[in-house]
Amino acid sequence: MSVRMQPEEYVSTRSMPWATLSPGIRMKVLRLSPESGTWTVLLRADAGASFARHRHLAAGEYFMLYGKMEVRGGAQAGGTTAVAGDYGWEPVSVIHDHTFFPEETEFLFTNHGAVQFVDEKGNTTSVLDWEVIQSLARTASARAA
Amino acid sequence: MSVRMQPEEYVSTRSMPWATLSPGIRMKVLRLSPESGTWTVLLRADAGASFARHRHLAAGEYFMLYGKMEVRGGAQAGGTTAVAGDYGWEPVSVIHDHTFFPEETEFLFTNHGAVQFVDEKGNTTSVLDWEVIQSLARTASARAA
Amino acid sequence: MSVRMQPEEYVSTRSMPWATLSPGIRMKVLRLSPESGTWTVLLRADAGASFARHRHLAAGEYFMLYGKMEVRGGAQAGGTTAVAGDYGWEPVSVIHDHTFFPEETEFLFTNHGAVQFVDEKGNTTSVLDWEVIQSLARTASARAA
Amino acid sequence: MSVRMQPEEYVSTRSMPWATLSPGIRMKVLRLSPESGTWTVLLRADAGASFARHRHLAAGEYFMLYGKMEVRGGAQAGGTTAVAGDYGWEPVSVIHDHTFFPEETEFLFTNHGAVQFVDEKGNTTSVLDWEVIQSLARTASARAA
Repeated sequence: MSVRMQPEEYVSTRSMPWATLSPGIRMKVLRLSPESGTWTVLLRADAGASFARHRHLAAGEYFMLYGKMEVRGGAQAGGTTAVAGDYGWEPVSVIHDHTFFPEETEFLFTNHGAVQFVDEKGNTTSVLDWEVIQSLARTASARAA
Repeated sequence: MSVRMQPEEYVSTRSMPWATLSPGIRMKVLRLSPESGTWTVLLRADAGASFARHRHLAAGEYFMLYGKMEVRGGAQAGGTTAVAGDYGWEPVSVIHDHTFFPEETEFLFTNHGAVQFVDEKGNTTSVLDWEVIQSLARTASARAA
Repeated sequence: MSVRMQPEEYVSTRSMPWATLSPGIRMKVLRLSPESGTWTVLLRADAGASFARHRHLAAGEYFMLYGKMEVRGGAQAGGTTAVAGDYGWEPVSVIHDHTFFPEETEFLFTNHGAVQFVDEKGNTTSVLDWEVIQSLARTASARAA
Repeated sequence: MSVRMQPEEYVSTRSMPWATLSPGIRMKVLRLSPESGTWTVLLRADAGASFARHRHLAAGEYFMLYGKMEVRGGAQAGGTTAVAGDYGWEPVSVIHDHTFFPEETEFLFTNHGAVQFVDEKGNTTSVLDWEVIQSLARTASARAA
Protein backbone atom coordinates (compact mmCIF):
# COMPACT_ATOMS: atom_id res chain seq x y z
CA MET A 1 0.00 0.00 0.00
CA SER A 2 1.23 3.43 -0.88
CA VAL A 3 -0.97 6.48 -0.93
CA ARG A 4 -0.05 10.03 -1.76
CA MET A 5 -1.19 13.44 -0.65
CA GLN A 6 -4.11 14.71 -2.68
CA PRO A 7 -3.50 17.54 -5.15
CA GLU A 8 -4.91 20.98 -4.45
CA GLU A 9 -8.08 21.61 -6.44
CA TYR A 10 -9.16 24.91 -7.89
CA VAL A 11 -12.34 25.47 -9.88
CA SER A 12 -13.43 28.65 -11.62
CA THR A 13 -17.20 28.62 -12.03
CA ARG A 14 -17.56 31.58 -14.40
CA SER A 15 -17.01 29.74 -17.67
CA MET A 16 -18.72 26.53 -16.50
CA PRO A 17 -22.06 25.75 -18.15
CA TRP A 18 -25.16 25.36 -15.99
CA ALA A 19 -26.49 21.81 -15.80
CA THR A 20 -30.15 21.08 -15.11
CA LEU A 21 -30.78 19.39 -11.78
CA SER A 22 -34.58 19.48 -11.89
CA PRO A 23 -37.20 21.77 -13.43
CA GLY A 24 -36.20 25.37 -12.69
CA ILE A 25 -33.05 24.34 -10.79
CA ARG A 26 -29.63 24.59 -12.43
CA MET A 27 -26.22 23.74 -10.98
CA LYS A 28 -22.46 24.00 -11.43
CA VAL A 29 -20.42 21.25 -9.81
CA LEU A 30 -17.55 22.38 -7.59
CA ARG A 31 -16.47 19.01 -6.23
CA LEU A 32 -17.52 15.36 -6.09
CA SER A 33 -15.96 12.95 -3.64
CA PRO A 34 -16.15 9.25 -4.48
CA GLU A 35 -14.61 8.59 -1.03
CA SER A 36 -17.18 10.35 1.15
CA GLY A 37 -20.00 10.65 -1.38
CA THR A 38 -20.07 14.42 -0.76
CA TRP A 39 -21.08 16.70 -3.63
CA THR A 40 -20.59 20.46 -3.57
CA VAL A 41 -22.57 22.53 -6.05
CA LEU A 42 -23.57 26.06 -6.86
CA LEU A 43 -27.35 26.06 -7.32
CA ARG A 44 -29.48 28.61 -9.16
CA ALA A 45 -33.25 28.37 -8.76
CA ASP A 46 -35.67 30.22 -11.02
CA ALA A 47 -38.40 32.32 -9.40
CA GLY A 48 -41.22 29.90 -8.60
CA ALA A 49 -39.06 26.75 -8.63
CA SER A 50 -39.17 24.18 -5.82
CA PHE A 51 -37.70 20.89 -4.65
CA ALA A 52 -40.04 17.91 -4.41
CA ARG A 53 -40.52 16.01 -1.12
CA HIS A 54 -37.24 14.40 -0.14
CA ARG A 55 -35.37 12.80 2.73
CA HIS A 56 -31.71 13.55 3.47
CA LEU A 57 -29.75 10.31 3.83
CA ALA A 58 -26.74 12.47 4.71
CA ALA A 59 -26.39 15.98 6.07
CA GLY A 60 -26.60 18.98 3.77
CA GLU A 61 -25.30 22.53 4.18
CA TYR A 62 -26.20 25.73 2.34
CA PHE A 63 -24.89 29.27 2.15
CA MET A 64 -27.14 31.82 0.44
CA LEU A 65 -25.63 34.14 -2.20
CA TYR A 66 -28.76 36.05 -3.28
CA GLY A 67 -32.52 35.54 -3.52
CA LYS A 68 -34.84 33.77 -1.13
CA MET A 69 -35.37 30.13 -0.10
CA GLU A 70 -38.41 29.07 1.91
CA VAL A 71 -37.78 25.85 3.83
CA ARG A 72 -40.83 24.10 5.38
CA GLY A 73 -43.21 26.85 4.26
CA GLY A 74 -40.86 29.73 5.04
CA ALA A 75 -40.82 31.98 8.10
CA GLN A 76 -44.53 32.87 7.71
CA ALA A 77 -45.45 29.18 8.22
CA GLY A 78 -43.03 28.41 11.05
CA GLY A 79 -40.21 27.32 8.75
CA THR A 80 -37.17 29.25 7.58
CA THR A 81 -36.82 31.96 4.94
CA ALA A 82 -33.14 32.19 4.05
CA VAL A 83 -31.58 35.20 2.31
CA ALA A 84 -28.07 36.32 1.27
CA GLY A 85 -25.45 35.58 3.94
CA ASP A 86 -27.56 32.94 5.69
CA TYR A 87 -26.23 29.49 6.45
CA GLY A 88 -28.08 26.28 7.26
CA TRP A 89 -27.38 22.68 8.30
CA GLU A 90 -29.88 20.03 7.29
CA PRO A 91 -29.28 16.93 9.40
CA VAL A 92 -29.22 13.29 8.34
CA SER A 93 -32.77 11.85 8.14
CA VAL A 94 -34.60 15.18 7.90
CA ILE A 95 -37.59 15.19 5.53
CA HIS A 96 -38.34 18.32 3.52
CA ASP A 97 -41.83 18.40 2.03
CA HIS A 98 -41.47 21.50 -0.03
CA THR A 99 -38.61 23.96 -0.47
CA PHE A 100 -39.75 26.97 -2.50
CA PHE A 101 -37.93 29.84 -4.24
CA PRO A 102 -40.22 32.88 -4.63
CA GLU A 103 -37.52 34.74 -6.59
CA GLU A 104 -34.34 33.84 -8.52
CA THR A 105 -31.94 32.48 -5.94
CA GLU A 106 -28.33 31.32 -5.91
CA PHE A 107 -26.68 29.38 -3.13
CA LEU A 108 -23.81 27.09 -2.39
CA PHE A 109 -24.89 23.59 -1.38
CA THR A 110 -22.78 20.78 0.05
CA ASN A 111 -24.49 17.43 0.50
CA HIS A 112 -22.59 14.71 2.32
CA GLY A 113 -24.20 11.76 0.52
CA ALA A 114 -27.51 10.82 -1.03
CA VAL A 115 -30.98 12.38 -1.12
CA GLN A 116 -33.98 10.06 -1.34
CA PHE A 117 -37.10 11.26 -3.19
CA VAL A 118 -40.26 9.70 -1.82
CA ASP A 119 -43.84 9.74 -3.14
CA GLU A 120 -47.03 10.19 -1.06
CA LYS A 121 -47.15 6.45 -0.33
CA GLY A 122 -43.63 6.49 1.07
CA ASN A 123 -42.15 4.69 -1.93
CA THR A 124 -38.69 5.72 -3.07
CA THR A 125 -38.97 7.28 -6.51
CA SER A 126 -35.30 8.12 -6.99
CA VAL A 127 -31.98 8.50 -5.20
CA LEU A 128 -29.82 11.52 -5.96
CA ASP A 129 -26.13 10.94 -5.31
CA TRP A 130 -22.72 12.04 -6.59
CA GLU A 131 -22.97 9.69 -9.59
CA VAL A 132 -26.25 11.25 -10.74
CA ILE A 133 -24.82 14.72 -10.19
CA GLN A 134 -21.77 13.86 -12.29
CA SER A 135 -23.90 12.39 -15.04
CA LEU A 136 -26.05 15.54 -15.23
CA ALA A 137 -22.96 17.77 -15.29
CA ARG A 138 -21.42 15.73 -18.12
CA THR A 139 -24.55 16.07 -20.21
CA ALA A 140 -24.42 19.84 -19.78
CA SER A 141 -20.72 19.98 -20.67
CA ALA A 142 -21.25 17.88 -23.78
CA ARG A 143 -24.03 20.22 -24.93
CA ALA A 144 -21.92 23.31 -24.26
CA ALA A 145 -18.96 21.91 -26.22
CA MET B 1 -23.95 29.39 19.57
CA SER B 2 -22.01 27.45 22.10
CA VAL B 3 -20.88 23.89 21.57
CA ARG B 4 -18.95 21.66 23.91
CA MET B 5 -16.43 18.89 23.52
CA GLN B 6 -18.07 15.51 23.15
CA PRO B 7 -17.86 13.06 26.05
CA GLU B 8 -15.72 9.96 25.74
CA GLU B 9 -17.81 6.91 24.96
CA TYR B 10 -17.15 3.40 26.18
CA VAL B 11 -19.29 0.38 25.36
CA SER B 12 -18.93 -3.13 26.73
CA THR B 13 -20.52 -5.59 24.32
CA ARG B 14 -20.49 -8.67 26.54
CA SER B 15 -23.75 -8.08 28.37
CA MET B 16 -25.47 -6.48 25.38
CA PRO B 17 -28.28 -8.53 23.79
CA TRP B 18 -28.04 -9.47 20.12
CA ALA B 19 -30.56 -7.70 17.91
CA THR B 20 -31.77 -9.22 14.64
CA LEU B 21 -30.67 -7.31 11.56
CA SER B 22 -31.98 -9.76 8.97
CA PRO B 23 -32.55 -13.54 8.82
CA GLY B 24 -29.45 -15.23 10.25
CA ILE B 25 -27.67 -11.93 10.94
CA ARG B 26 -27.53 -10.52 14.47
CA MET B 27 -25.88 -7.34 15.70
CA LYS B 28 -24.74 -5.34 18.71
CA VAL B 29 -24.60 -1.59 18.25
CA LEU B 30 -21.36 0.11 19.24
CA ARG B 31 -22.12 3.61 18.04
CA LEU B 32 -24.65 5.61 16.02
CA SER B 33 -23.89 9.10 14.79
CA PRO B 34 -26.84 11.35 13.98
CA GLU B 35 -24.29 13.90 12.70
CA SER B 36 -22.53 11.77 10.09
CA GLY B 37 -25.09 8.98 9.77
CA THR B 38 -22.35 6.45 10.57
CA TRP B 39 -23.31 3.27 12.41
CA THR B 40 -20.77 0.91 13.93
CA VAL B 41 -21.89 -2.60 14.78
CA LEU B 42 -20.62 -6.00 15.73
CA LEU B 43 -22.22 -8.51 13.36
CA ARG B 44 -22.67 -12.24 13.85
CA ALA B 45 -23.82 -14.26 10.84
CA ASP B 46 -25.08 -17.81 11.16
CA ALA B 47 -23.56 -20.47 8.91
CA GLY B 48 -25.46 -20.21 5.63
CA ALA B 49 -26.70 -16.66 6.14
CA SER B 50 -26.35 -13.99 3.48
CA PHE B 51 -27.06 -10.35 2.69
CA ALA B 52 -29.54 -9.61 -0.10
CA ARG B 53 -28.56 -7.50 -3.12
CA HIS B 54 -27.76 -3.97 -1.94
CA ARG B 55 -26.09 -0.73 -2.94
CA HIS B 56 -23.86 1.22 -0.60
CA LEU B 57 -24.97 4.88 -0.50
CA ALA B 58 -21.98 5.49 1.79
CA ALA B 59 -18.71 3.65 2.32
CA GLY B 60 -18.52 0.62 4.61
CA GLU B 61 -15.58 -0.97 6.43
CA TYR B 62 -15.22 -4.39 7.99
CA PHE B 63 -12.72 -6.16 10.20
CA MET B 64 -13.09 -9.93 10.52
CA LEU B 65 -13.02 -11.51 14.00
CA TYR B 66 -13.67 -15.17 13.09
CA GLY B 67 -15.42 -17.21 10.42
CA LYS B 68 -15.62 -16.57 6.70
CA MET B 69 -17.32 -13.99 4.49
CA GLU B 70 -17.60 -14.46 0.74
CA VAL B 71 -18.02 -11.14 -1.09
CA ARG B 72 -19.06 -11.28 -4.77
CA GLY B 73 -18.96 -15.08 -4.85
CA GLY B 74 -15.82 -15.41 -2.75
CA ALA B 75 -12.24 -15.98 -3.90
CA GLN B 76 -13.25 -19.04 -5.99
CA ALA B 77 -15.48 -16.82 -8.15
CA GLY B 78 -13.13 -13.85 -8.48
CA GLY B 79 -14.46 -12.07 -5.40
CA THR B 80 -13.07 -11.96 -1.89
CA THR B 81 -13.12 -14.54 0.90
CA ALA B 82 -12.36 -12.72 4.12
CA VAL B 83 -11.20 -14.47 7.31
CA ALA B 84 -10.04 -13.44 10.81
CA GLY B 85 -7.72 -10.42 10.74
CA ASP B 86 -8.83 -9.25 7.29
CA TYR B 87 -10.00 -5.74 6.62
CA GLY B 88 -12.05 -4.34 3.75
CA TRP B 89 -13.30 -1.01 2.43
CA GLU B 90 -16.51 -1.00 0.43
CA PRO B 91 -16.74 2.27 -1.49
CA VAL B 92 -19.72 4.55 -1.98
CA SER B 93 -21.96 3.31 -4.82
CA VAL B 94 -20.70 -0.27 -4.87
CA ILE B 95 -23.39 -2.91 -5.49
CA HIS B 96 -23.12 -6.27 -3.75
CA ASP B 97 -25.30 -8.96 -5.23
CA HIS B 98 -24.71 -11.62 -2.67
CA THR B 99 -22.53 -11.74 0.41
CA PHE B 100 -22.46 -15.23 1.88
CA PHE B 101 -21.31 -16.73 5.19
CA PRO B 102 -20.47 -20.45 4.81
CA GLU B 103 -19.78 -20.74 8.55
CA GLU B 104 -20.64 -18.77 11.71
CA THR B 105 -18.84 -15.46 11.34
CA GLU B 106 -18.31 -12.40 13.48
CA PHE B 107 -16.98 -9.08 12.28
CA LEU B 108 -16.89 -5.41 13.09
CA PHE B 109 -18.73 -3.27 10.56
CA THR B 110 -18.75 0.50 10.22
CA ASN B 111 -21.08 1.99 7.64
CA HIS B 112 -20.85 5.69 6.95
CA GLY B 113 -24.49 6.20 5.97
CA ALA B 114 -27.31 4.31 4.31
CA VAL B 115 -27.58 1.02 2.44
CA GLN B 116 -30.19 0.73 -0.30
CA PHE B 117 -31.82 -2.65 -0.97
CA VAL B 118 -32.91 -3.04 -4.56
CA ASP B 119 -35.04 -5.72 -6.27
CA GLU B 120 -34.36 -7.33 -9.68
CA LYS B 121 -36.20 -4.50 -11.46
CA GLY B 122 -33.97 -1.90 -9.81
CA ASN B 123 -36.71 -0.66 -7.48
CA THR B 124 -35.71 0.34 -3.98
CA THR B 125 -37.28 -2.06 -1.52
CA SER B 126 -35.84 -0.54 1.66
CA VAL B 127 -33.22 1.82 3.01
CA LEU B 128 -31.15 0.77 6.01
CA ASP B 129 -29.78 3.69 8.01
CA TRP B 130 -28.86 4.60 11.58
CA GLU B 131 -32.50 5.13 12.52
CA VAL B 132 -33.47 1.62 11.45
CA ILE B 133 -30.43 0.20 13.24
CA GLN B 134 -31.42 2.03 16.42
CA SER B 135 -34.99 0.87 16.18
CA LEU B 136 -33.91 -2.79 15.81
CA ALA B 137 -31.51 -2.47 18.76
CA ARG B 138 -34.25 -0.98 20.94
CA THR B 139 -36.58 -3.85 20.16
CA ALA B 140 -33.89 -6.32 21.23
CA SER B 141 -33.17 -4.40 24.45
CA ALA B 142 -36.86 -4.24 25.33
CA ARG B 143 -37.16 -8.03 24.84
CA ALA B 144 -34.05 -8.70 26.95
CA ALA B 145 -35.31 -6.48 29.82
CA MET C 1 -27.84 4.15 24.18
CA SER C 2 -30.40 6.35 22.57
CA VAL C 3 -29.53 9.06 20.09
CA ARG C 4 -31.83 11.46 18.32
CA MET C 5 -31.89 13.15 14.96
CA GLN C 6 -30.03 16.44 15.01
CA PRO C 7 -32.05 19.66 14.84
CA GLU C 8 -31.92 21.78 11.70
CA GLU C 9 -29.60 24.73 12.11
CA TYR C 10 -30.08 28.16 10.63
CA VAL C 11 -27.72 31.09 11.09
CA SER C 12 -28.20 34.63 9.87
CA THR C 13 -24.81 36.33 9.57
CA ARG C 14 -25.97 39.92 9.08
CA SER C 15 -26.33 40.90 12.73
CA MET C 16 -23.38 38.77 13.88
CA PRO C 17 -20.28 40.70 15.03
CA TRP C 18 -16.96 40.11 13.30
CA ALA C 19 -14.39 38.32 15.45
CA THR C 20 -10.66 38.76 14.88
CA LEU C 21 -8.93 35.62 13.67
CA SER C 22 -5.50 37.17 13.06
CA PRO C 23 -4.21 40.63 12.08
CA GLY C 24 -6.35 41.89 9.20
CA ILE C 25 -8.53 38.76 9.12
CA ARG C 26 -12.01 38.79 10.65
CA MET C 27 -14.57 35.99 10.81
CA LYS C 28 -18.17 35.07 11.54
CA VAL C 29 -18.74 31.50 12.68
CA LEU C 30 -21.43 29.55 10.82
CA ARG C 31 -20.93 26.15 12.42
CA LEU C 32 -18.58 24.24 14.72
CA SER C 33 -18.70 20.47 14.99
CA PRO C 34 -17.28 18.88 18.13
CA GLU C 35 -17.88 15.49 16.46
CA SER C 36 -15.85 15.98 13.29
CA GLY C 37 -13.80 18.99 14.35
CA THR C 38 -15.03 20.87 11.28
CA TRP C 39 -15.43 24.65 11.51
CA THR C 40 -17.27 26.69 8.90
CA VAL C 41 -16.64 30.43 8.84
CA LEU C 42 -17.19 33.51 6.75
CA LEU C 43 -13.80 35.25 6.44
CA ARG C 44 -13.11 38.89 5.59
CA ALA C 45 -9.51 39.85 4.86
CA ASP C 46 -8.38 43.45 4.73
CA ALA C 47 -6.41 44.60 1.69
CA GLY C 48 -2.79 43.63 2.37
CA ALA C 49 -3.59 40.94 4.95
CA SER C 50 -2.09 37.47 4.79
CA PHE C 51 -1.99 34.09 6.54
CA ALA C 52 1.29 32.99 8.08
CA ARG C 53 2.98 29.74 7.06
CA HIS C 54 0.75 26.82 8.06
CA ARG C 55 0.10 23.14 7.49
CA HIS C 56 -3.37 21.72 7.06
CA LEU C 57 -3.90 18.77 9.42
CA ALA C 58 -7.30 18.33 7.79
CA ALA C 59 -8.71 19.37 4.43
CA GLY C 60 -10.04 22.88 3.87
CA GLU C 61 -12.47 24.26 1.30
CA TYR C 62 -13.14 27.82 0.19
CA PHE C 63 -15.70 29.61 -1.95
CA MET C 64 -14.88 33.20 -2.94
CA LEU C 65 -17.55 35.88 -2.48
CA TYR C 66 -15.57 38.96 -3.59
CA GLY C 67 -12.00 40.26 -3.70
CA LYS C 68 -8.83 38.34 -4.47
CA MET C 69 -6.84 35.62 -2.73
CA GLU C 70 -3.33 34.70 -3.86
CA VAL C 71 -2.38 31.17 -2.83
CA ARG C 72 1.31 30.15 -3.18
CA GLY C 73 2.28 33.49 -4.71
CA GLY C 74 -0.82 33.79 -6.88
CA ALA C 75 -1.20 32.99 -10.59
CA GLN C 76 1.78 35.21 -11.54
CA ALA C 77 4.08 32.93 -9.46
CA GLY C 78 2.62 29.58 -10.49
CA GLY C 79 0.09 29.48 -7.67
CA THR C 80 -3.60 30.34 -7.70
CA THR C 81 -5.36 33.71 -7.74
CA ALA C 82 -8.94 33.11 -6.68
CA VAL C 83 -11.78 35.58 -7.32
CA ALA C 84 -15.58 35.68 -6.83
CA GLY C 85 -17.25 32.38 -7.73
CA ASP C 86 -14.06 30.33 -7.43
CA TYR C 87 -13.85 27.21 -5.31
CA GLY C 88 -10.83 25.39 -3.91
CA TRP C 89 -9.97 22.22 -2.00
CA GLU C 90 -6.86 22.26 0.16
CA PRO C 91 -5.90 18.68 0.97
CA VAL C 92 -4.76 17.20 4.28
CA SER C 93 -1.03 17.80 4.84
CA VAL C 94 -0.63 20.66 2.37
CA ILE C 95 1.70 23.45 3.51
CA HIS C 96 0.91 27.05 2.58
CA ASP C 97 3.78 29.43 3.00
CA HIS C 98 1.98 32.64 2.32
CA THR C 99 -1.62 33.35 1.36
CA PHE C 100 -2.05 37.02 0.44
CA PHE C 101 -5.05 39.31 -0.07
CA PRO C 102 -4.16 42.28 -2.32
CA GLU C 103 -7.63 43.78 -1.82
CA GLU C 104 -10.50 43.40 0.67
CA THR C 105 -11.78 39.86 0.23
CA GLU C 106 -14.63 37.81 1.61
CA PHE C 107 -14.97 34.06 1.32
CA LEU C 108 -16.62 31.07 2.88
CA PHE C 109 -14.16 28.65 4.47
CA THR C 110 -14.79 25.16 5.80
CA ASN C 111 -11.92 23.45 7.56
CA HIS C 112 -12.33 19.81 8.54
CA GLY C 113 -10.04 19.90 11.59
CA ALA C 114 -6.93 21.66 12.80
CA VAL C 115 -4.36 23.96 11.19
CA GLN C 116 -0.79 23.84 12.47
CA PHE C 117 1.31 27.02 12.40
CA VAL C 118 5.00 26.30 12.01
CA ASP C 119 8.05 28.56 12.30
CA GLU C 120 11.13 28.55 10.02
CA LYS C 121 12.75 25.81 12.12
CA GLY C 122 9.72 23.55 11.69
CA ASN C 123 8.58 24.03 15.29
CA THR C 124 4.86 24.17 15.93
CA THR C 125 3.98 27.63 17.19
CA SER C 126 0.22 27.12 17.52
CA VAL C 127 -2.65 24.86 16.56
CA LEU C 128 -5.89 26.42 15.34
CA ASP C 129 -8.93 24.22 15.89
CA TRP C 130 -12.68 24.51 16.58
CA GLU C 131 -12.05 25.30 20.25
CA VAL C 132 -9.84 28.28 19.42
CA ILE C 133 -12.36 29.47 16.81
CA GLN C 134 -15.15 29.27 19.39
CA SER C 135 -13.11 31.12 21.97
CA LEU C 136 -12.35 33.97 19.54
CA ALA C 137 -16.02 34.21 18.52
CA ARG C 138 -17.12 34.37 22.15
CA THR C 139 -14.74 37.22 22.86
CA ALA C 140 -16.20 39.16 19.92
CA SER C 141 -19.79 38.48 21.05
CA ALA C 142 -19.02 39.60 24.59
CA ARG C 143 -17.54 42.86 23.28
CA ALA C 144 -20.52 43.48 20.98
CA ALA C 145 -23.03 42.91 23.81
CA MET D 1 -13.78 17.11 -13.94
CA SER D 2 -14.40 13.41 -14.02
CA VAL D 3 -14.17 11.21 -10.97
CA ARG D 4 -14.72 7.49 -10.71
CA MET D 5 -16.05 5.15 -8.06
CA GLN D 6 -13.34 3.99 -5.71
CA PRO D 7 -12.14 0.39 -5.96
CA GLU D 8 -12.99 -2.07 -3.22
CA GLU D 9 -10.07 -2.60 -0.88
CA TYR D 10 -9.18 -5.83 0.84
CA VAL D 11 -6.23 -6.28 3.18
CA SER D 12 -5.04 -9.50 4.76
CA THR D 13 -3.07 -8.71 7.89
CA ARG D 14 -1.58 -12.15 8.54
CA SER D 15 1.47 -11.86 6.32
CA MET D 16 1.97 -8.15 7.00
CA PRO D 17 5.05 -7.24 9.08
CA TRP D 18 4.59 -5.33 12.33
CA ALA D 19 5.87 -1.75 12.21
CA THR D 20 7.01 0.07 15.33
CA LEU D 21 4.79 2.99 16.31
CA SER D 22 6.48 3.80 19.60
CA PRO D 23 8.38 1.83 22.28
CA GLY D 24 6.40 -1.34 22.98
CA ILE D 25 3.67 -0.50 20.46
CA ARG D 26 3.58 -2.18 17.06
CA MET D 27 1.08 -1.73 14.24
CA LYS D 28 -0.20 -3.06 10.93
CA VAL D 29 -1.80 -0.50 8.64
CA LEU D 30 -5.24 -1.39 7.28
CA ARG D 31 -6.05 1.86 5.52
CA LEU D 32 -4.81 5.43 5.11
CA SER D 33 -7.01 8.12 3.62
CA PRO D 34 -5.29 11.17 2.13
CA GLU D 35 -8.78 12.65 1.63
CA SER D 36 -10.02 12.55 5.22
CA GLY D 37 -6.69 12.03 7.00
CA THR D 38 -8.13 8.91 8.67
CA TRP D 39 -5.76 6.05 9.48
CA THR D 40 -6.95 2.60 10.48
CA VAL D 41 -4.48 0.30 12.19
CA LEU D 42 -4.20 -2.90 14.13
CA LEU D 43 -2.20 -2.15 17.28
CA ARG D 44 -0.31 -4.59 19.49
CA ALA D 45 0.99 -3.28 22.81
CA ASP D 46 3.53 -5.19 24.88
CA ALA D 47 2.76 -5.78 28.55
CA GLY D 48 3.87 -2.62 30.34
CA ALA D 49 3.76 -0.36 27.28
CA SER D 50 2.01 3.01 27.31
CA PHE D 51 1.18 6.05 25.19
CA ALA D 52 2.70 9.38 26.17
CA ARG D 53 0.54 12.41 26.94
CA HIS D 54 -1.31 13.43 23.79
CA ARG D 55 -4.22 15.46 22.49
CA HIS D 56 -6.60 14.17 19.83
CA LEU D 57 -6.94 16.72 17.01
CA ALA D 58 -9.53 14.38 15.49
CA ALA D 59 -11.75 11.66 16.94
CA GLY D 60 -10.40 8.15 17.52
CA GLU D 61 -12.19 4.82 17.85
CA TYR D 62 -11.01 1.50 19.24
CA PHE D 63 -12.27 -2.06 19.36
CA MET D 64 -10.47 -4.43 21.73
CA LEU D 65 -9.39 -7.84 20.45
CA TYR D 66 -7.59 -9.18 23.54
CA GLY D 67 -5.65 -7.90 26.54
CA LYS D 68 -6.31 -4.84 28.64
CA MET D 69 -6.07 -1.08 28.08
CA GLU D 70 -6.24 1.39 30.96
CA VAL D 71 -7.40 4.84 29.83
CA ARG D 72 -7.03 7.73 32.30
CA GLY D 73 -5.69 5.44 35.05
CA GLY D 74 -8.07 2.60 34.32
CA ALA D 75 -11.34 1.71 36.12
CA GLN D 76 -9.61 1.70 39.53
CA ALA D 77 -8.75 5.40 39.12
CA GLY D 78 -12.05 6.55 37.65
CA GLY D 79 -10.99 5.97 34.05
CA THR D 80 -11.74 3.06 31.75
CA THR D 81 -10.29 -0.45 31.63
CA ALA D 82 -11.13 -1.88 28.24
CA VAL D 83 -11.03 -5.62 27.45
CA ALA D 84 -11.91 -7.89 24.50
CA GLY D 85 -15.16 -6.87 22.80
CA ASP D 86 -15.13 -3.33 24.20
CA TYR D 87 -15.49 -0.30 21.99
CA GLY D 88 -14.61 3.34 22.66
CA TRP D 89 -14.93 6.75 21.02
CA GLU D 90 -12.32 9.37 21.88
CA PRO D 91 -13.65 12.77 20.87
CA VAL D 92 -11.85 15.62 19.12
CA SER D 93 -9.81 17.70 21.60
CA VAL D 94 -9.64 15.09 24.37
CA ILE D 95 -6.30 14.93 26.21
CA HIS D 96 -5.00 11.56 27.40
CA ASP D 97 -2.25 11.79 29.96
CA HIS D 98 -1.35 8.16 30.15
CA THR D 99 -2.82 5.10 28.46
CA PHE D 100 -1.34 1.93 29.92
CA PHE D 101 -1.29 -1.73 28.87
CA PRO D 102 -0.74 -4.05 31.88
CA GLU D 103 -0.64 -7.10 29.60
CA GLU D 104 -0.10 -7.80 25.90
CA THR D 105 -3.04 -6.22 24.12
CA GLU D 106 -4.31 -6.07 20.56
CA PHE D 107 -6.95 -3.69 19.28
CA LEU D 108 -8.26 -2.08 16.16
CA PHE D 109 -7.80 1.68 16.11
CA THR D 110 -9.25 4.21 13.69
CA ASN D 111 -8.08 7.79 14.03
CA HIS D 112 -9.80 10.44 11.95
CA GLY D 113 -6.82 12.80 11.69
CA ALA D 114 -3.80 13.87 13.69
CA VAL D 115 -2.63 13.30 17.26
CA GLN D 116 -0.58 16.04 18.94
CA PHE D 117 2.06 15.06 21.51
CA VAL D 118 2.60 17.74 24.10
CA ASP D 119 5.27 18.12 26.81
CA GLU D 120 4.72 19.30 30.40
CA LYS D 121 5.05 22.94 29.34
CA GLY D 122 2.31 22.53 26.75
CA ASN D 123 4.73 22.67 23.82
CA THR D 124 4.00 20.44 20.84
CA THR D 125 6.74 17.84 20.57
CA SER D 126 5.36 15.98 17.53
CA VAL D 127 2.30 15.49 15.37
CA LEU D 128 1.29 11.96 14.38
CA ASP D 129 -0.71 11.82 11.16
CA TRP D 130 -1.32 9.52 8.20
CA GLU D 131 1.97 10.54 6.59
CA VAL D 132 3.99 9.51 9.64
CA ILE D 133 2.02 6.26 9.90
CA GLN D 134 2.77 5.50 6.24
CA SER D 135 6.43 6.31 6.66
CA LEU D 136 6.74 3.94 9.66
CA ALA D 137 4.92 1.17 7.79
CA ARG D 138 7.23 1.56 4.77
CA THR D 139 10.29 1.24 6.95
CA ALA D 140 8.93 -2.00 8.38
CA SER D 141 8.09 -3.38 4.93
CA ALA D 142 11.55 -2.54 3.61
CA ARG D 143 13.14 -4.37 6.56
CA ALA D 144 10.90 -7.40 6.08
CA ALA D 145 11.70 -7.62 2.35
